[in-house]
Order: sequence, then structure tokens, then C-alpha cells
Amino acid sequence: MATKKFLIIGGDAAGMSAAARARRRDPELEIEALERGGFVSYAACGIPYFISGEVKALHDLVVVTPDEFEKKRGIRVRLHHRVEKIDPEKKLVIARNLETDRLLEFPYDDLLIATGAAPIVPAGLSLSLPGVFTVRGLAKTRELKEFIAANSPREALIVGGGYIGLEMAEALAGLGLKVQMTKLTPREMLALEEEVSEEIIRELADNGVELTIGAGAEKLEPDPAGRLKIALSNGEERIADLVIVAAGVRPESELARQAGLELGEKGAIKVDRRQRTSADHVYAAGDCAEAYHRLLKRNAYIPLALTANRQGRVAGTNVTGGQEEFAGMQGSAVTRVFELTAARTGLGRKEAADAGFDAEKVYVKSNSRAHYFPGSRTIHTVLIVEKNTGRLLGAQMAGRDGVAHRINLFALAAAQGISVSELKDADLAYAPPFSPVFDPVLQAAEVAAKKIG
Amino acid sequence: MATKKFLIIGGDAAGMSAAARARRRDPELEIEALERGGFVSYAACGIPYFISGEVKALHDLVVVTPDEFEKKRGIRVRLHHRVEKIDPEKKLVIARNLETDRLLEFPYDDLLIATGAAPIVPAGLSLSLPGVFTVRGLAKTRELKEFIAANSPREALIVGGGYIGLEMAEALAGLGLKVQMTKLTPREMLALEEEVSEEIIRELADNGVELTIGAGAEKLEPDPAGRLKIALSNGEERIADLVIVAAGVRPESELARQAGLELGEKGAIKVDRRQRTSADHVYAAGDCAEAYHRLLKRNAYIPLALTANRQGRVAGTNVTGGQEEFAGMQGSAVTRVFELTAARTGLGRKEAADAGFDAEKVYVKSNSRAHYFPGSRTIHTVLIVEKNTGRLLGAQMAGRDGVAHRINLFALAAAQGISVSELKDADLAYAPPFSPVFDPVLQAAEVAAKKIG
Repeated sequence: MATKKFLIIGGDAAGMSAAARARRRDPELEIEALERGGFVSYAACGIPYFISGEVKALHDLVVVTPDEFEKKRGIRVRLHHRVEKIDPEKKLVIARNLETDRLLEFPYDDLLIATGAAPIVPAGLSLSLPGVFTVRGLAKTRELKEFIAANSPREALIVGGGYIGLEMAEALAGLGLKVQMTKLTPREMLALEEEVSEEIIRELADNGVELTIGAGAEKLEPDPAGRLKIALSNGEERIADLVIVAAGVRPESELARQAGLELGEKGAIKVDRRQRTSADHVYAAGDCAEAYHRLLKRNAYIPLALTANRQGRVAGTNVTGGQEEFAGMQGSAVTRVFELTAARTGLGRKEAADAGFDAEKVYVKSNSRAHYFPGSRTIHTVLIVEKNTGRLLGAQMAGRDGVAHRINLFALAAAQGISVSELKDADLAYAPPFSPVFDPVLQAAEVAAKKIG
Repeated sequence: MATKKFLIIGGDAAGMSAAARARRRDPELEIEALERGGFVSYAACGIPYFISGEVKALHDLVVVTPDEFEKKRGIRVRLHHRVEKIDPEKKLVIARNLETDRLLEFPYDDLLIATGAAPIVPAGLSLSLPGVFTVRGLAKTRELKEFIAANSPREALIVGGGYIGLEMAEALAGLGLKVQMTKLTPREMLALEEEVSEEIIRELADNGVELTIGAGAEKLEPDPAGRLKIALSNGEERIADLVIVAAGVRPESELARQAGLELGEKGAIKVDRRQRTSADHVYAAGDCAEAYHRLLKRNAYIPLALTANRQGRVAGTNVTGGQEEFAGMQGSAVTRVFELTAARTGLGRKEAADAGFDAEKVYVKSNSRAHYFPGSRTIHTVLIVEKNTGRLLGAQMAGRDGVAHRINLFALAAAQGISVSELKDADLAYAPPFSPVFDPVLQAAEVAAKKIG
């Protein structure tokens, strides 16, 4: 009997998680991954910290090398292979070896599309000018780092105020650059509720980042002094030596579309909870695909690392005879913006209303530690709670101490349908260096429980 | 109609929480608290950090002053009043004013006993020798601080290896003292599982604390050089300039016993979930009383600050016509020992077995942050899981980064009957400065879910 072949398009976390899981379950399966770039299995979320210098070496971001995949796990990795066509009828993928420029055919028994997401580049912004970068992939990251080292840029403009934009603002400011940021969408950062978003805006201002709200970057050109001139949609102009385009991402679903696969939310590849696409034997996982949202009870497009890893694993299980379902995500995320940590899980007020929930919003300020303990800082908490049941639908927090793990209590509560009345009675561990006797989580739940009453 | 009177014995967190809650619910009620010492409503858990100097002023530990209670809330506080007798038949309390030495009668309509716990002092240890202290109350704390300032002790011996002993070891070592510690009970610190306990033992050793295990302090006397000589039960001898007796606590239930009230677990005052004792109109709350244990589904004696505050509030609700029940505790606790944080919630392996659970133990080591991120440290996690259901019964953690709030995810899971299979699928917020993509909580739950099958 011939060995079956599992082919993977894309060597990111989703693709390589699938490969690793499939190998663990089936030592015989032929597994091959086609990656357009020169790296697989790297921690994309770590890129801003390599730019800042907190992470010293680019290869520190690589989790497993192609060599390790091949020698230790028998997973073939082909770098610099760009897939040009998927033929689900013939169960065939055609890819170009970018080093030889030759087209090659890759038959498969099962295929996983894990092509990830690509930065959205506003029309009018040319990425070909020197000093203009997106944040994507390790090769580009190395170029950016080298550009900064070689040119010592004094001023940077970040186009976009999402997670990557904020993390890059911190990284570049830390390197001594003056940082400007322009954000097309309204005042709320990261689509957070106002109370939490305002803390981010304050933190940016406190750290010298000049934020322009409600203006996109429309045109980018060299200025006579050899710098970059950016025309904003509000008619203003900015000058910078370095431009980072971080205006959101879109799913890389073009190959899938051309192959006739159904697309779903925001153009992401439509999948069921087993990560199957509309084509037989074709799976999709990670930032190119939709993901099942636990609270909305339908698919949504919120590309995040944990989801990508889990979807990859689910695909890896299912191509090896398993019956696993992706458990679901709920948009839990956290980011560090200078000294501030901002985090969210579940639904915001508008998302909850749009999904038909009758929801109440509660905002609570509390201390991160015992009031007398050094290092105690204010934590801002917003809860979104279903009115008739008291069920927690979402939570957002911002603060300069003790936010990143606390948000996860709300995440677990929202996922498990725990009400704020139950949550307020949780027996949480207390010691003065870590929390007040009544933890901010308990305080917020108690205020919410009273309000819902 | 005459105003009803709510009398409280003890001005600690439980007593004053009850007073505050009762006042909020009933502006007319006469409320009076009798406190033996000179302080009420102070943060006892903060004492080691005042000794260490992290908390600068003793009065920083006071949450609300007697004056504030009286003027702002109409709650009468009598300091230096030691209760000598409770007469539940006559609804009368007899107390001695320690400043005038006069006996006074206090009639009540409802009484709350919130007398707290007292340090256990092993026979043979005289507290009257200079340089010998327990950790209890702000007056004694001030004496200890003054003793250290005046005598510059070089060596300290801590009798007992519980939370207070460990925190005092850190505080005294931080002041430059050489610290010895002796612990009568076996090797496991804080009754934690071996894997977590060993991290504490290592941390003590790394910080120069000389720990003697399995030996109690039997005799304490001055030595010829004017220092203190301590004879241990293993025949050894220790010399120190300062001795801290922190060999556990016992409930202060003697008044209740004399009044004929039923005592329960470990001599603590027996209460129902409304904090009622066996005598009509007599309530008890805090470290002198039992508390309902959520996982054992019966009362237990695990004196902790959050429980005391909550029981006080429940009593305050119920003496003002409410029908509130204490939701329950599960022994969640956390402590900082030098750079290490150790935490627990729920049942240990032996406790689970004793309670009739068929439980499995899982031990997992993981990184506190992304592997490449500076500051990532090992987190040691032990889970106790019910075999047939996968329900989480308890968790313990030790680590030098990111332990204190993570334990609370396990606390919530254990309280809500969430299985490790559900927990492993939680959508937790991730960013490299705070966690790996799969958080240590998820990793431990996954290992447990696999082991349970």
C-alpha cells in the first residue's frame, strides 16, 4: 500500500503545528510543507521585540528549524517555493521554486492551506521606497533592523494603530526615534471601549508618540531632503525617515478563491470546526481562515496566534484519521504599550448588541495590589454582561501592573458561561504584593452583579 | 421603638467588614465594636512588609481608623476593651476596660464574635524574654521594628515554616540578618506537594536561610553572651539575637467555648453558611470560625483574609434582615518567598484522597513567557484531578515569574467544576512579554487531560 501524502501550503505556526501533530499521530505519513519565504515555524509575535533589541538574535524567534523538521521528525520543508495553483479535482498543487524559477507539481492526499495573512497596504503607499516597511516575516524584519542600523532614522511614522503598530511604536521609541502614528479609524484604540482605549492614548502621549486620529496615509513620496513625505487624508503632511505600514491584515485566501473554495468572513477561507474547507481533502488553518467564535456561536475572522496553532493541530489530527473539532476562540488578546498593558476577551458592547445580546456595560477602577504596597497601580476594567442572566460576555482591562493574566479569568468565565454573581464569589489567592484582598476581578464582578441585580 | 444593637467582639477585618456592611444596609442600627488592642481594621497580611521596610509607615496598614468609623459611619469603636464573658441567655457581654481596669456590661440584640486567631506558642518558649516575638497585631509589630532598630540583631531564628514564617524570613534577610528557620513538620513547605515545596526549600537555601526540618523549638533561654539559646527537639542548639515564633495559629474560641457555643474543626467556632453559631443571635466570622469549603462541601478551618472579610460581610447582611450565605472558600493562597512565588488552591493529593476522591496528580514544568523573551522563568505546576470526570480539584504553582494571578484560573475552574479538558481549550490572551502561545495553565491542563484519558 502506498504511503499517503499530507501537503501543507505555508510554513507558519498553523502549518507546522499541523505537520507536527500529524507526525505524532502517524509515523508513516509523508508530510511536506511548501513555504514561499526562507523561514518556517517562527514566532511572528516576537518581531517588535527583535526590533526593540529585547530579543537579541533573529534566530531566537525560530521555534524549529527546517533541518530539525526534516531530520528529527521526517517532515520535508521546501523553502522558497511559491504555490501558484491548487487543483482540488486532481489533488495537485503547482508551485514555483523561486531559486530555480521552475514549476513543480505536488500531488497530495490531504492538503492544508496555511497561507496566513498579509498586511493591508493603503492605495498610494509604495512599499518599494527605501525606508518603507510592513511587519511581516523574518527576512523583512532583518531588512528593517539593518535599515535602522545603517540609516539611524530620526523620525518614524506608523500607519495604523493596531497591535503591531502599537508594539512597533514602543520598539522604535525605545531606540530613540521620534514616533508619529496615524490612525484612520475613530478614537478607540484596538476597537476597545473608550475607558480602556483612553489609557492607551494617554500612554502614547506620555511617551512622546504623536497620534493623529481619523486620518489615513494617502500618498507617500520622497521629499527633496531625501526623507519621506506622507500626505494624510485630513490634508496634513508628515515627514519621516522610516514608515511602518501596519494598517491591519487581510487573509491570504487568493489561491483558495482561485481554486473555487468558498470564502467566508472578511474573505477568509470558510472552514468547519474540523478545519475542512468546501473542497474535499482540503483543510485550512490559521490567519488565512475563519475560526469558530465561542460566544457568537458562528465563525468570525480574528487572526491570533493561539487560534492558528490550535487550528493547525486540529487539521493535523483530522488528516490522520481523527475527529477533532476546534474548541473555539473568543478574541482574547493582550498587548504591551510602553508601561501599559491592555487586554480584552469576548465581546465589546457594540459587538454584543450586534449579536443580539441585551448587554450592560460596567466600568470599574481598582488597585492592582494592596493599597499600601509599593507598585500598586490603577487597573481599569470594563465588563460586558448579559442583562437577564448576568453572564459575562466580554471584558477589557488596561493598567500598568497585573493585567495580562487577570484578563484570563474573565476569558474562562465568558467561555464557561459563568455569571458575574458566581465570579464575584470566587476564592482567589491573595497576598499584598499581588492584589488587594478583593482582587480587581472580584471588585469588577461585584459591581456588575449589583448593577444587573 | 428602641434601636437594635449589633455588638462586635474584635476589630479585625471580619468584625469591621460586618460593621461596615450592617451600616450600609441599616442607617439606624446601633453598632459597637470592642477591641482588646489599640488598632482596628488593619491589614495583618502587610506586617512582614512593614518589617522589611517595603511598607514605610505602620499607619499605612490601617484601612479605616476608629475615628473614621465613628465620625463617618456612626460605628462606635472601643479600643483596649477585653471581653471576659459572653452570656447568650441574657444577650450580654462583659468586658474589661484595660485602661481603667473596670468591668463593663454590653447588652446586644445581635452579637458577632470576630476574635481572630492567636499564634501557637510551643511549650517551653517564653515570649517574655527580650528579642522573642510572635507576629500579631500592630502594637507588637511596632515593638519588633523598634527592637531591630535598637539592637541591630545579627542572627534570627524563625520557629515555623508557614506563610508568616517564610515572609518574615524574607523580611529579616532583606534587613541583613542571617536567618535560620526550624520546622517541626516534614519536608513539605506549606503542606504543598513535593515538587512545589522543593522550590521553596531551594529559594530559602539560595538566599542563605538555614532550614532545619523535623525539629521543633523546645526550650528558649538567655545564653551567657546575652543572646538567645534555643534547644531543638532533635538535640541540636541554635543561637540567635531575635526569635520569631510563627508555628501556626489556633482559633481564639475560648470565650465562645465558655459561653457554651459549639466548636468545630480544630477548635474553631462552629457556624452555618449564614455565619450563625449554635447560640441564638450570636454570629462568628473570620479566623476564630470555621468556613464552608466549596470542594469538601463541609466546614473546614483554613484562616485566610478574603474568607474573613467575606464572612464578616455575610454576618453584617444577616443581622440586618438579610439572608446571605457565605459562598465558600477552597484554601486559595499565595505567598512571596524572596524571588519565588508559591500558590495553591483547592485540594492537595492527600486531602483529595482523604475526602474520598479518586484523584490523579500531574506535574508540569513550563516557561512563564515566550521562550525567547527576556525574563522567562520556569513555572512548576501540580494539578490534582478527579479521575473519572477530569474535574480539577486543586492546583499548586511555584515560579519566579507570573504565578500569582495564574493560580486563580485554576481556582475558578475548581470552584465551577470545570474539567481539565475544558480548561485546556480556554482562549487565553497571549503576548510574548506575558506568556508562551500555550500558557502554562493550558499546558498543565493538557497534560492532565491526556493522563486522565
